[in-house]
Amino acid sequence: MAEKNSAHKSAQNKASKEGDLESPSFLFHDRTKRVRESLKADALLVSVPANILYLCGFSGSSGLLLVEPARSTLFTDSRYTFQSREEVKGAKVVIAKKGLLTALGDHLGRRRGGIRLAASLKHVTVAQQDALSSRVGKRIRWSDDLSAIERLRAIKSGSELAVMREAAVLISRVFEKVLRRIKPGVTEMQLAARIDYEIKLAGGSGPSFETIVAAGPRSSWAHARPSPKPMGKNELVVLDQGAILRAYCSDMTRTVHIGRASGRIRSLYEAVLEAQQAAKAVIRPGTTAGQVDAAARGALKRRRLAQYFTHSTGHGLGLEIHEMPRIGRGEETVLQEGMVVTVEPGVYLDAIGGIRIEDDVVVTKTGAVDLTTAPRDFLEL
Amino acid sequence: MAEKNSAHKSAQNKASKEGDLESPSFLFHDRTKRVRESLKADALLVSVPANILYLCGFSGSSGLLLVEPARSTLFTDSRYTFQSREEVKGAKVVIAKKGLLTALGDHLGRRRGGIRLAASLKHVTVAQQDALSSRVGKRIRWSDDLSAIERLRAIKSGSELAVMREAAVLISRVFEKVLRRIKPGVTEMQLAARIDYEIKLAGGSGPSFETIVAAGPRSSWAHARPSPKPMGKNELVVLDQGAILRAYCSDMTRTVHIGRASGRIRSLYEAVLEAQQAAKAVIRPGTTAGQVDAAARGALKRRRLAQYFTHSTGHGLGLEIHEMPRIGRGEETVLQEGMVVTVEPGVYLDAIGGIRIEDDVVVTKTGAVDLTTAPRDFLEL
Repeated sequence: MAEKNSAHKSAQNKASKEGDLESPSFLFHDRTKRVRESLKADALLVSVPANILYLCGFSGSSGLLLVEPARSTLFTDSRYTFQSREEVKGAKVVIAKKGLLTALGDHLGRRRGGIRLAASLKHVTVAQQDALSSRVGKRIRWSDDLSAIERLRAIKSGSELAVMREAAVLISRVFEKVLRRIKPGVTEMQLAARIDYEIKLAGGSGPSFETIVAAGPRSSWAHARPSPKPMGKNELVVLDQGAILRAYCSDMTRTVHIGRASGRIRSLYEAVLEAQQAAKAVIRPGTTAGQVDAAARGALKRRRLAQYFTHSTGHGLGLEIHEMPRIGRGEETVLQEGMVVTVEPGVYLDAIGGIRIEDDVVVTKTGAVDLTTAPRDFLEL
Repeated sequence: MAEKNSAHKSAQNKASKEGDLESPSFLFHDRTKRVRESLKADALLVSVPANILYLCGFSGSSGLLLVEPARSTLFTDSRYTFQSREEVKGAKVVIAKKGLLTALGDHLGRRRGGIRLAASLKHVTVAQQDALSSRVGKRIRWSDDLSAIERLRAIKSGSELAVMREAAVLISRVFEKVLRRIKPGVTEMQLAARIDYEIKLAGGSGPSFETIVAAGPRSSWAHARPSPKPMGKNELVVLDQGAILRAYCSDMTRTVHIGRASGRIRSLYEAVLEAQQAAKAVIRPGTTAGQVDAAARGALKRRRLAQYFTHSTGHGLGLEIHEMPRIGRGEETVLQEGMVVTVEPGVYLDAIGGIRIEDDVVVTKTGAVDLTTAPRDFLEL
């Protein structure tokens, strides 16, 4: 351990001197080192694309990464010869000629004795397992392990936060830009298509999930898909949208009203905004995810609206649209500096419609800081 | 077998009388019946969404379908209570309260003795297999089987062809609509974003794969992703695009030139078009996929261009963008009436760029009939 620590320190010193603590090489090296430290097996097989990207920078769709104590190896195919050479840091690249599993099997087959192989078993298929067994024999003992990488991914570095802030600003601007298109006669699908188009024009790779535009009665469905229904006067419209920018996701919801809203609707909106503020107010390192959820739920309870808040308060966000930590009832995960989560309370009343307000926030020493920037005032269009 | 046949006939008679041989109920019933007839196990576990949709109409993202000789059961969760009630035909729906695998395990656990369970093992995860074993014990004997459904899916019914024709016309019109936007200064990403936007405005659910716009030197990469590079004068531009319409895919490539092209480029274009026509000309029931590929390759060989045709000639198309049959070198699959395949020869020369022309065609008694309708003339914009 002493040796490892000193290696780490010297890498850090070197990085600091050169001002590249956030350089991709250093980050990939550091992340892989941490995964190795928590490894309770001879090797870790990484098959989830987001995890492969996180650990060695490879963004192709065909890859398997094997992390061993003394080396990492990325197996990919010839379509990615050039791309892998450009992207991969801190792992040896093997271009598999007869399939990734054959190459991985040959690699593992050169080891002696039993092989304890950790992997996320909900991502390894039976066919993959069989192919490896037929190559290596029965020497592999599988164990289920994903948590180390997922825990690492939950805490964002400075460079990750910079990209996530950009992705959040991008989606905020897209929302503000399409506001003038929210009017009677425009269909939910047309507006959603426009949002996706604007995301790409602004430089995003695309939406980070299927954009939701839900108007009138459909606004009370928490996960409505855009329909060919035209939006109408005096309807609530829920817009839930996010962008992928350089592999990182943003996720923001705003609810607007077409025409002047009733007092009841305005007071519901205020209640949701209060609930969101209450949740943001308790966010800081040391708070549990469950306490954040309870703060939002408590605020709605004081307005006798808790029963209409039918989902959890939020979720972690990063390379994937849903990652650790989950911000829900009773969740015991302790928030830490550098986590990025959504805060998205909502109320859904059959007769009136739905209202949800969602921001992405980063957990800092002094509390939650918003990444999404679109105004939260109630907009009557 | 006699009983089954008469049941089939009576279903057909009934359907014919009511004029609904193409009604969803009849189609799902008929497809499931055929799967049952080829089943060499006690039950078939279907986990691929496109196959579930094909066999019982369910389009949700969380589902497992179990086909047994006397019944079919769809396991889904409470988010899909209403949707499954509306969509599912010919299968009993079980809303799983504690996870789909738990419900499936309980269902299988009620059977006695060993259970021969067929499934596509490249789609079943180790975690799923473990969860079932822990519920049912070691009584399950797995076998790998996907081919029956894939073979069925390869032959399209009249109603499927009608939707696929619409999807093909949709993408053809989108291409024609964006033509005026292909000009120097517009980036590949902007044009690709516009194509995706137009697909949705025209009623499609979205692109059936990541739209390819590749100009200049990048046009010679068969699978280039759109880049922030502006298109330039005197460049070839490859546009490979497809739409999803009511779950079915289209897929079409056209290559255009910005400005007046050289004689060399024009003759290359002609050669690719000839190769495409040669491939279409041999398509009919009874031809093998390999013969179609050979026809395209042979035409290019006569022009000494075969070495620049670096991929296969086409692929089946339907609920998924790539399905049976593969149209490649030596493929022995025999074409049958009702198959829909792409025909997409291309040549890629580093110094000049790439040219690919792709149409979707349906195999009819009298030969290939185009579904995609955009002009194939060489366009100098």
